[in-house]
Amino acid sequence: MDLHQLTRQLNVRNNSKIVMLVADGLGGLPIEPGGKTELETARTPNLDQLAAVGIQGGSIPVLPGISPGSGPGHLALFGYDPLKWLIGRGALEATGIGLELQPGDVAARGNFCTLDSRGLITDRRAGRISSEESAPLARKLNDIRLEGVELIVMPVKEHRFVVVFRGSGLGDQLDDTDPQQTGRPPLPAVGRDEPSKRTARLVGEFVSMAGKVLAGEAKANGLTLRGFASRPALPSFDEVYGLRAAAIAVYPMYKGLASLVGMQVVGQAGDLEGQVQVLRECWNEFDFFFLHFKYTDSTGEDGDFPAKVRRIEELDRIVPDIAGLKPDVLIVTGDHSTPSALKSHSWHPVPTLLVAKNCRPDGHVAFGERQCQSGGLGQFEAKYLMALALANAGRLEKFGA
Amino acid sequence: MDLHQLTRQLNVRNNSKIVMLVADGLGGLPIEPGGKTELETARTPNLDQLAAVGIQGGSIPVLPGISPGSGPGHLALFGYDPLKWLIGRGALEATGIGLELQPGDVAARGNFCTLDSRGLITDRRAGRISSEESAPLARKLNDIRLEGVELIVMPVKEHRFVVVFRGSGLGDQLDDTDPQQTGRPPLPAVGRDEPSKRTARLVGEFVSMAGKVLAGEAKANGLTLRGFASRPALPSFDEVYGLRAAAIAVYPMYKGLASLVGMQVVGQAGDLEGQVQVLRECWNEFDFFFLHFKYTDSTGEDGDFPAKVRRIEELDRIVPDIAGLKPDVLIVTGDHSTPSALKSHSWHPVPTLLVAKNCRPDGHVAFGERQCQSGGLGQFEAKYLMALALANAGRLEKFGA
Repeated sequence: MDLHQLTRQLNVRNNSKIVMLVADGLGGLPIEPGGKTELETARTPNLDQLAAVGIQGGSIPVLPGISPGSGPGHLALFGYDPLKWLIGRGALEATGIGLELQPGDVAARGNFCTLDSRGLITDRRAGRISSEESAPLARKLNDIRLEGVELIVMPVKEHRFVVVFRGSGLGDQLDDTDPQQTGRPPLPAVGRDEPSKRTARLVGEFVSMAGKVLAGEAKANGLTLRGFASRPALPSFDEVYGLRAAAIAVYPMYKGLASLVGMQVVGQAGDLEGQVQVLRECWNEFDFFFLHFKYTDSTGEDGDFPAKVRRIEELDRIVPDIAGLKPDVLIVTGDHSTPSALKSHSWHPVPTLLVAKNCRPDGHVAFGERQCQSGGLGQFEAKYLMALALANAGRLEKFGA
Repeated sequence: MDLHQLTRQLNVRNNSKIVMLVADGLGGLPIEPGGKTELETARTPNLDQLAAVGIQGGSIPVLPGISPGSGPGHLALFGYDPLKWLIGRGALEATGIGLELQPGDVAARGNFCTLDSRGLITDRRAGRISSEESAPLARKLNDIRLEGVELIVMPVKEHRFVVVFRGSGLGDQLDDTDPQQTGRPPLPAVGRDEPSKRTARLVGEFVSMAGKVLAGEAKANGLTLRGFASRPALPSFDEVYGLRAAAIAVYPMYKGLASLVGMQVVGQAGDLEGQVQVLRECWNEFDFFFLHFKYTDSTGEDGDFPAKVRRIEELDRIVPDIAGLKPDVLIVTGDHSTPSALKSHSWHPVPTLLVAKNCRPDGHVAFGERQCQSGGLGQFEAKYLMALALANAGRLEKFGA
């Protein structure tokens, strides 16, 4: 019996409210030996006040030592084992630009490339063509019509785009058409089972027609496709937890990830204040609220320690507004660490704070990495956080008699 | 997707060096209520200095409450789930005396026993015959020739020996021939599948010929065999981690365990100083170095608390020489606890210290069981230690986008 089998069987509905505030890439590192992390450096009186009545610990996104991308990081926070539920690259790329995949769609990540007169690749990224140049090309490709399926092509950034084949009877078991080296032609699409062979034929038609569309282009006169993937068939929050869940995010990637687990994406907030406003407005309609704050990650990726500190302080200032709504369970966490010292996602456990009436406080009076290292939640796999949330909300019955 | 699937997929090679210093049976217990453990009692200024810049925790060798033998204890440290990768007794026994098994070999643990005139066992251990008496008998058995296979018999200690059948088409699914009680004859070898039936016939021939060789012996005129086992097919460190790994150990058992996971056994050091000398000499040829120190276990097994303290202090004195090589990741741990209070391996988590540039130190300034209990690594399954080592060495890419 796995975790979701347990929560499916044991969950009960009540009027409780759970808020999960996700500060992307929250965890950090000191930049000097013996120094403080970003979170420890930031002045966070409101989070510290919550810490005094809450319980904290370090959440391990996937497994010790594993640095997750946003996909596995969020799935884990949502209680979906990130080693069981894999999101293929094409599906994640589509999700990341707000393209909502439907069951049966097959998405792939596309790269514009440069071909010579014999059709051999001379540049796999089309000279890292600018977004301004590539976006109109993607739009031209979007006009291609294929027999029996709908085709969607959307630009991503620079040489990247997403292509989605929408129709029935398609499969995603296709090899990449990117030969991964120059001096060779793009590979033909090959499907590994019947539905995927059908997709492969459509891919072949698309590539052939795209070749004509792009024929006159100097840089981007070819394309490769990789990471063919369907929308993963994740059970919904309602199914596995009995929760009506709302996602209040600014960036498409996080809205997309939330919608994959059946959350309703609510509002069109552009910043934290806006997100809290949306939270207030939809408070009565949902049981669970996922609020996503991006900038603790992006400042970490930039290696900008002081900026990450400021972003954490910005987050802290909004905390009283959320706490003021009196959620039964308030969780503050991240999907992974992004230490500005590393300028990248990392494997370090993520500071995680849970506040609820019966949460057995651990006596810490500040929220930080050091406190989390000796906090009452210990160092735990992030996938267990949702069960803790449900339990603290009185939404899980006893297991066994 | 399991841990090795992850590390196979995510590992990257670089020039980093990882040293894992394993003090066998390191963990201990106080001998008086409220007292200190062996490690806490020992004067360890060098380990304490590492603790101040590192992160520590308690590694759980197998599962909470499970006391491991050397096999599972080391497999876990090497990142091989000890509940998945089982080493049969015969294979471990052969490994322990430095007999390097080849794929397809079938090894068994042998016991000399005493038979009466009717062939019934009167003493299952041949009166605990001394090694001096039994070793020549084992050598005589080693002269036995069997049709179509190579036979190797090597003495272990007292009534124990190892027998290896080397040839093609052999199986290890055989029941023990030891009836586990006196007054009965040794059981015939019975194979459970075709290759093992072939092995069983060879075992029968061997036992029959051994009977003639031993016929005149007063004590050891018979034998029983148990724990038939082939070499486990463990993937190598190179395959699962992309690491060129060296094992620098004194005792055959640990050299053998290391070679089972594809480490190269380097040097012929007889003590810690010699091991560090070998480490220096092969520093440029490998990425990962396993150094094994036996005496923290043997003094624990002897129940000699002060001797174990002295052995820990001996270990501490060598630490600066290792740290002086500036490994990117330095781990000090044990394969299990051997508290002198218990005179045996135990289930207690093992003090484990990891030092690396980006390890997120936990603020402890000494290395000991109490510090490990509230250390930043928490209480974790030992099998995750290798992933942490790789991550801290910059050898793991991000999982998922």
